[in-house]
Amino acid sequence: MSTFGTLFRVTTYGESHCASVGAIIDGCPPGLPLVAQDVQTQLSRRRPGQSNLTTPRDEKDLVQLQSGTEHGITLGTPIGLLVRNEDQRPKDYSETDLYPRPSHADWTYLEKYGVKASSGGGRSSARETIGRVAAGAIAEKYLKLAYGVEIVAFVSSVGKVQLPSAVSPPSQVSADDDDTVEDALSPEFVELLKTVTREKVDAQPTRCPHAETSERMTQRIIRAKDALDSIGGTVTCVIRNVPSGIGEPVFDKLEAKLAHAMLSIPATKAFEIGSGFRGTQIPGSKHNDAFELRPDGHMGTRTNWSGGVQGGISNAEDIYFRVGFKSPATISQAQATAQYDGTPGTLAARGRHDPCVVPRAVPIVEAMAALVIMDQVLIQNARKTAASLLPAITTLPPTMVKMTKAPEEAKEAKQ
Amino acid sequence: MSTFGTLFRVTTYGESHCASVGAIIDGCPPGLPLVAQDVQTQLSRRRPGQSNLTTPRDEKDLVQLQSGTEHGITLGTPIGLLVRNEDQRPKDYSETDLYPRPSHADWTYLEKYGVKASSGGGRSSARETIGRVAAGAIAEKYLKLAYGVEIVAFVSSVGKVQLPSAVSPPSQVSADDDDTVEDALSPEFVELLKTVTREKVDAQPTRCPHAETSERMTQRIIRAKDALDSIGGTVTCVIRNVPSGIGEPVFDKLEAKLAHAMLSIPATKAFEIGSGFRGTQIPGSKHNDAFELRPDGHMGTRTNWSGGVQGGISNAEDIYFRVGFKSPATISQAQATAQYDGTPGTLAARGRHDPCVVPRAVPIVEAMAALVIMDQVLIQNARKTAASLLPAITTLPPTMVKMTKAPEEAKEAKQ
Amino acid sequence: MSTFGTLFRVTTYGESHCASVGAIIDGCPPGLPLVAQDVQTQLSRRRPGQSNLTTPRDEKDLVQLQSGTEHGITLGTPIGLLVRNEDQRPKDYSETDLYPRPSHADWTYLEKYGVKASSGGGRSSARETIGRVAAGAIAEKYLKLAYGVEIVAFVSSVGKVQLPSAVSPPSQVSADDDDTVEDALSPEFVELLKTVTREKVDAQPTRCPHAETSERMTQRIIRAKDALDSIGGTVTCVIRNVPSGIGEPVFDKLEAKLAHAMLSIPATKAFEIGSGFRGTQIPGSKHNDAFELRPDGHMGTRTNWSGGVQGGISNAEDIYFRVGFKSPATISQAQATAQYDGTPGTLAARGRHDPCVVPRAVPIVEAMAALVIMDQVLIQNARKTAASLLPAITTLPPTMVKMTKAPEEAKEAKQ
Amino acid sequence: MSTFGTLFRVTTYGESHCASVGAIIDGCPPGLPLVAQDVQTQLSRRRPGQSNLTTPRDEKDLVQLQSGTEHGITLGTPIGLLVRNEDQRPKDYSETDLYPRPSHADWTYLEKYGVKASSGGGRSSARETIGRVAAGAIAEKYLKLAYGVEIVAFVSSVGKVQLPSAVSPPSQVSADDDDTVEDALSPEFVELLKTVTREKVDAQPTRCPHAETSERMTQRIIRAKDALDSIGGTVTCVIRNVPSGIGEPVFDKLEAKLAHAMLSIPATKAFEIGSGFRGTQIPGSKHNDAFELRPDGHMGTRTNWSGGVQGGISNAEDIYFRVGFKSPATISQAQATAQYDGTPGTLAARGRHDPCVVPRAVPIVEAMAALVIMDQVLIQNARKTAASLLPAITTLPPTMVKMTKAPEEAKEAKQ
Repeated sequence: MSTFGTLFRVTTYGESHCASVGAIIDGCPPGLPLVAQDVQTQLSRRRPGQSNLTTPRDEKDLVQLQSGTEHGITLGTPIGLLVRNEDQRPKDYSETDLYPRPSHADWTYLEKYGVKASSGGGRSSARETIGRVAAGAIAEKYLKLAYGVEIVAFVSSVGKVQLPSAVSPPSQVSADDDDTVEDALSPEFVELLKTVTREKVDAQPTRCPHAETSERMTQRIIRAKDALDSIGGTVTCVIRNVPSGIGEPVFDKLEAKLAHAMLSIPATKAFEIGSGFRGTQIPGSKHNDAFELRPDGHMGTRTNWSGGVQGGISNAEDIYFRVGFKSPATISQAQATAQYDGTPGTLAARGRHDPCVVPRAVPIVEAMAALVIMDQVLIQNARKTAASLLPAITTLPPTMVKMTKAPEEAKEAKQ
Repeated sequence: MSTFGTLFRVTTYGESHCASVGAIIDGCPPGLPLVAQDVQTQLSRRRPGQSNLTTPRDEKDLVQLQSGTEHGITLGTPIGLLVRNEDQRPKDYSETDLYPRPSHADWTYLEKYGVKASSGGGRSSARETIGRVAAGAIAEKYLKLAYGVEIVAFVSSVGKVQLPSAVSPPSQVSADDDDTVEDALSPEFVELLKTVTREKVDAQPTRCPHAETSERMTQRIIRAKDALDSIGGTVTCVIRNVPSGIGEPVFDKLEAKLAHAMLSIPATKAFEIGSGFRGTQIPGSKHNDAFELRPDGHMGTRTNWSGGVQGGISNAEDIYFRVGFKSPATISQAQATAQYDGTPGTLAARGRHDPCVVPRAVPIVEAMAALVIMDQVLIQNARKTAASLLPAITTLPPTMVKMTKAPEEAKEAKQ
Repeated sequence: MSTFGTLFRVTTYGESHCASVGAIIDGCPPGLPLVAQDVQTQLSRRRPGQSNLTTPRDEKDLVQLQSGTEHGITLGTPIGLLVRNEDQRPKDYSETDLYPRPSHADWTYLEKYGVKASSGGGRSSARETIGRVAAGAIAEKYLKLAYGVEIVAFVSSVGKVQLPSAVSPPSQVSADDDDTVEDALSPEFVELLKTVTREKVDAQPTRCPHAETSERMTQRIIRAKDALDSIGGTVTCVIRNVPSGIGEPVFDKLEAKLAHAMLSIPATKAFEIGSGFRGTQIPGSKHNDAFELRPDGHMGTRTNWSGGVQGGISNAEDIYFRVGFKSPATISQAQATAQYDGTPGTLAARGRHDPCVVPRAVPIVEAMAALVIMDQVLIQNARKTAASLLPAITTLPPTMVKMTKAPEEAKEAKQ
Repeated sequence: MSTFGTLFRVTTYGESHCASVGAIIDGCPPGLPLVAQDVQTQLSRRRPGQSNLTTPRDEKDLVQLQSGTEHGITLGTPIGLLVRNEDQRPKDYSETDLYPRPSHADWTYLEKYGVKASSGGGRSSARETIGRVAAGAIAEKYLKLAYGVEIVAFVSSVGKVQLPSAVSPPSQVSADDDDTVEDALSPEFVELLKTVTREKVDAQPTRCPHAETSERMTQRIIRAKDALDSIGGTVTCVIRNVPSGIGEPVFDKLEAKLAHAMLSIPATKAFEIGSGFRGTQIPGSKHNDAFELRPDGHMGTRTNWSGGVQGGISNAEDIYFRVGFKSPATISQAQATAQYDGTPGTLAARGRHDPCVVPRAVPIVEAMAALVIMDQVLIQNARKTAASLLPAITTLPPTMVKMTKAPEEAKEAKQ
C-alpha cells in the first residue's frame, strides 16, 4: 500500500499527471523546528534538470506545507504537504499508447487494476518519490538534532565504471576465500564512510565523490545518451551515529527494513548491507568483527564487515549498504515488442529522458534510510523508556544484564 | 516485531532454550486440507543432522498442531503450532559467557533489551525459523492447490564455488556493458529455473542441483570444517506460476516484500531479484524485456531480466532472486576479542557447529517466499473481487482499460 | 494515529487554522465512477451554517480531488483530497488563551505533545472530520454500487427529547425483565429502520425524521442557545443490505470496529448496537433471534435484537446502532475554572457556537460506518475468493460445511 | 483478525475443542519479573465452576509459559503461553447440530468461512478469552510496577437489579436537563471508583461489591436458572493512576480503543465512558469539568463527567466505563427456530450453562482494559522520549508550550 512505517508513518499520493503529488507524515515528534526550506533542499536535489546528465525537463517541485506546524515548530500532528504537478492534463492519445512499454509498469498496472492512468508512468512515475523525499527530510532533521545522525549516499558505480578498489564497497572488490590469503576490509573505504559529506558528493555532477571516477562515469552516461540508450548503477549509503539497539527482531531486523525501503524505490533490483554478497566468500574467522574497547569508553568492533548491524540490531558502528538500480527502461530508440492485444510491432522512440538515474536517486536513498531509522528509533525508545521504569534487576547472573545500566535511568521517564 | 504479513499473518515465539518454539498463523483460507505431515516435511528439511555437512545435533523437531483444523481441514481460524525444545534448561554458566561472541547478536541484544537469554542464541537462534518454515509450508500448500504455484530454492554458491556460467544467476556471470557486445540472459539458466525441483535439489547433500558443482561445494565445506572455520554462500529461489497482478505499489512492491522477508532470515546480507546487480551494467536496450504473445494466448516477455516483477507487480513470468548468507559467526577456533566490560581476551573454541548453513537455509528461503506471495495474493484478490462487482467501464479510452476483462466476471463475487 | 482501516485506509491531516485539511484514501477499488460532487454532497451536509440551529459561520468546504482518478474513474491508486481552510492565520493572543477550556482537549493536548496549536481546537477541531466524511462518501458510493448498501443516520434524541417509544431504539424504551411479561422489539422501530431515507432525515432541521419530535428537539436546542448553554443527543444509524459474513473474529468483530469508529468522533461518549444496554435486561428466551426461512429463499431472523451482527459477523439483517454525543463543551457563558498554571479564575464567554452538534454529526456517523463496512468487505472478499479456489470439501460432516455452497463458485476467481 | 495492539501486541489461537488455547504476547518490556502464577490468578478468576451461579464445569485452565522469560524475568522477546483443553475431541454428532443456535455465532461462522468447527462455539467460544486474560495480566503487572496503575472491574447490574443511585454509574441514574434543576455527578460513586478493590469485588459471589445489591442479583440469577433461562448485566471498570497524555488522536482516541476492546468480548452490546448516554442529557454548563489546582501541585478537574479522557487523551483522572453484556444465548429450554436448510423445528434443550456471565466477565474486562492502556503508554513513551531529546523551544508563545516542562528531561533518553 502507500503507507510506510509504524510510529513514524508516511503515506503518499499522486500520479504523474494529476493535480499534485503529496504526503502525510504522521508521528513526527512535537517541538521540532521545521519550515518548508528544510524539505525543499532535498526535493531540489531530487528534481530533474540539474545538469546535462539528467533530463532537461525543469520541474519546479516547490513544496507547500499544509499542516502540522505553527510558528515553524511541529505540533506532533500529521504534516500534510504537496507539490503541484506542472503538467496536470492527461496527454493526448498517441499510437505509442497501444504498446505497454517494455520493462515498465504499464502492463502490470493494467493486469493489477484493470484500469490505468492514460499518460506517463501514472502512480509508478518517479514523481511519486517526491513525498518520500519530503518525509525523509523531516525524519533526517529530527535524527540530526536528537542524535547527530548523518546520512550520506553517493554513486558508487555507473555501468561497469566503479570506484577504485581501495575505496569501493566490499562487493565491488574481488574476494579470496583461500584461508592462507589475507582478505581484509579496506581501511580506505572505511575512512571514506566516515568522512564523505553531501557537499563532497554534490561537488560532482554524477554524485560520485571521487573526481576521477566521476569523470569516467560522466563519459559512460554521455555514451549511453548519445546511443539513445540508458545505463544503470549503484548507490552506496552510510548512516553515522545511529545509537546501538535499533532494529526489531525477528521480522523487522534493521537490514530487513532497509532492504524493504530500498527495493521500494523504482528501478531497484538489488540490496546488500556490510560485506553483502562478498561476505558469502570470506571465511568466518576473517569475517567476524572482533570487539574492542574504544578510547572513549564505548565498545566497538575492530572491523565492520557487519555494516553496523548484528542480529538485526544496530551496534553503533557506521551502517552502510549498497543499492542496485537497473538501466532505465525508457530509452530514446525504437523497440521491437508487442501491443496490449499481442500484435507484434515497433514502439517508436519518444522524447528525451534520463539516460542514467542514479545521481538523482541519491536523495531518495537517503530519504528512505531516514524513514527506516526514524521509525525504529521511536519503537526502541518506547521499549527503553518502559524498561527504565521497572525496578532494577538483582536476581539475574551478570552476563544476562547490561552492566553499564545506570540506576538513575530508572527515574527518568516517570512524569 | 514478531509478526509478518497483513492478511496471511505469522507470529512466532521461542528462544533456543525455552519450553518450545512455535507460531500462530492467522488468515489461512478455510477449507484447505492440512495435517501435521504437510508441515513436517519442510521442518525436516530444515533441521540439523541431515548429513555430514551439517551439525551432528539431531533435533527431532516434531510439530504439534494446536488449533485451526478439524478432521484435517482448516477452519479459517488461527493455526497454533509448536515444536518442543529438546534442551529446555539454560546451560550452566561458563567463562565464555563473559564474551559477546563476535558478529553474533549477543552484544546487540543486551544493548537493545538490557537483559538477554543466558544460553545460546536466545531469540536470535536459528530455532526461531521453525515457526516460519511451518507457516510457509501452509502457505505453500494453499498456493499449490489454488494456483499451481511452485517454489524451489537451491544453493547457487558456496564461498567462491559457483554454478557454471551458463546456469548461474545473472550476477554470478560477468557483464559487458560495451554496446557493441552481445549481453544476453542465459537460456540455460532460464531453463534451469523452469525445471528445477525439490527432488533434484535434495539429491545433492549441498542442495546445489548441479552434481559436479555440488561435489566442489562439498569439498569447500569440508575444508572449512577441517580448518575449524566457516564459509557462506548464496541461495537462489524460483517461484513459478504466480498470477500477474501480485504486489502492492508503492511501498509494498513485490520485490520490496521479498527483500524484507529474505533479509529477516538470520545471517543474510544481500538480496537481488532478476538481473540484480548485474542489471546495473547492461544497457537498457538490451535489458528491457520485450513483450510477445505466447502460443497459449497469454502475453509474456521474450527475456526475463526483470525476474517476474515489473513496477513492483508480478507479470506471470518466473520470479527468481538470490540471497547471500555470510559465513557463520560461530566457529570452532579461538578468537581474540573483548569481554562485555571491554577487557581484551580470547574467546575459547566451543563445540561443533555448522561450517556452512546454506543447505539448511533452502527451506527457510522457500518458506519466506511463500509467506510473501500468499499475503499479496490475498490482498490482490480483495481488490480484484471488489472491482469485479462494479459496472463495466464504458467511458474510458481502450488503452486505459484491460481489454480482456470478461463481463461475466462482474457477477461472480455477488452472493 | 491518523490512519483508519486495513485494506481501505484513510489518513487525515489538518488543524483548525492551517492551510488546509485533507485526506489520503488508499485501497479504493479501481473502476469506480467518482467525481468531486460525490464527495461534496456529504461534506455540505456536515458543514456549519445550514440552519438557525447551527453556528452561523459559513464555511464553504469545497473539496479538491488531487489524484487517484482519471476521466472520472478511480485508478485504484491513492485518492488525495483537500479542503482549504478559510481562516488560515492563527488568531491573535487573548487573555482567554491562559485557560485550558473545560472538557476540551486544550489541556490534554499540551500534556501529550508539550506544545499545541495556538488557536481553536487545533487537531481536535471538528474540521478534522472533513477528511473522514470525504473518505466515507467514497466508500459509500462503492458499497451502494456493488452491494446496494444503504447507510442512513438520524437524530434519535436531543437532551431528554426522544422519539416516541414505538419508534425508539431499544435502549430508549423501558425494559421489563419479569419473565411473565411480554417484552418485544418494537415492529414500528424495525419498520423505521427499513424505510428511513436521507431525504426524510434532511426534511427536518434537526435531522430527526419524526416531525413532531423534531419540533420539540428544535425547542430544546433553542432553549439551550438562549441560555448560552449547550445540549447533547444521540444519533441512530442503520446499515441495510450488508451481505452476511462481514466482520473479523476475534478482536475485529464488526461491532468492535463500529464502536471504535464511532468513539473516535469528537464529543462521543457511548455506543450500543442492537438491543444495547436494554439487552442486558431481557431474558435470553425473549432476546434470542430465532431463525426462519424467508420467502426469498434466504435465512433470516424473526427478530433483530442482535442488530445484524452475531458473533461479530454480519447476518444480513439490518445493522443498527446508537451513538451518544455529550453536550458541547464550548458554551457562550463564563465558567469558573483555572489557568494552565493553576491560577483560579473565570474563563470569559466567547463567540457563538453550535448549541447542539448532533444534526451535523449525522453525516460523520454515516461516513465512519461506511469506512468500517468497506474495509471489512474487502477483507472478507479476500478470504472468500481464496476459499473458492480450493477443491470442494467432501470429507466433512454436512453440518460443518455450508450446504448452499454453489460448486460454480470454485471457478470464479481463477484468472 | 486475532491480533490486538501496536507495540504491545497479543495474538490468540484456539477453539473450544482443539488441543489447546493460547497466545503470543509480543512487545512486553524486558526486565519485568514474571512467573506463571502472575497469569494464573486472573485465569482462575475467569474460569467456570467458581460458585453455584456459574456453570458447574470445572476447567482447570492451568497456564504453561513457553518462552520470553528466564529466571523469572522477561527478556523482551515474545511470550508464548497455552492452556490445554480438557476436552479435545470434537463431540459426537447429534440432531441438535442441524440447528444454528439462535443468537449464537453458528450460522454467521458458516456464512463467513463456508466451514466451521463441529462442536461447541469453536473459535467463538468463551475459551478464546483465556489468551486475552493471560496477556492482560502481564500488561497489568507492568503497569502496576511502573506507574501504580490499578484496574478494577465489578458488576454494576444484573437484569434490572442495579446498584443504589448514589453509587451507580451515571447512566444508571435518571438525568434532568431542566436548567433550573441541580444535576451533579454523585460523590459517592466517585468515591466508590477511588476505593473499590478486587478483594471487595471477589467477596461477593456476583462480583458486585455492594452486598445488599449482590444478594438481589444472586436472586435474579437463580430465578433465571430455575426458569431454564438467562439474564444479562453490566460491568463497570475503573482504571486509576494512568498518567496524563495517553491516547492517540484522532482515530485511536483512548475511548475508541477501549470501546473496540470491550466490544470484542463475546456477548457485549454496549459501551459508555464517563457520563456516557446520560451525558447527552446534561447541559454543557453542568457537564463541563472545570479545572483546579490540587494540593499536590497537579492540575485536576473538579468533576469527572469526562471519565478521565478529554479529546481522546487521558487527563490523569480516574478512567471509568461501563460495558453491557446481553443475556446469554445458550439457554436450557427448547426454542422454536429453523435448521440450517430452513426447515422449521424445535431446538431441544441441552446441558447446563451459565445463566449469567457477568461475574466471570469481570477479569476479561480488566484484561482488555490493561491491553489498551499498555499499548498506548508505550506509544506515548516513544513520542515523549523523542521530544525530550530536542532543544528547548524558546520561540513559541507561552500558551503553546507546556510550562512545567523540566529542562532536565531533555537529557534523559540520550544514551
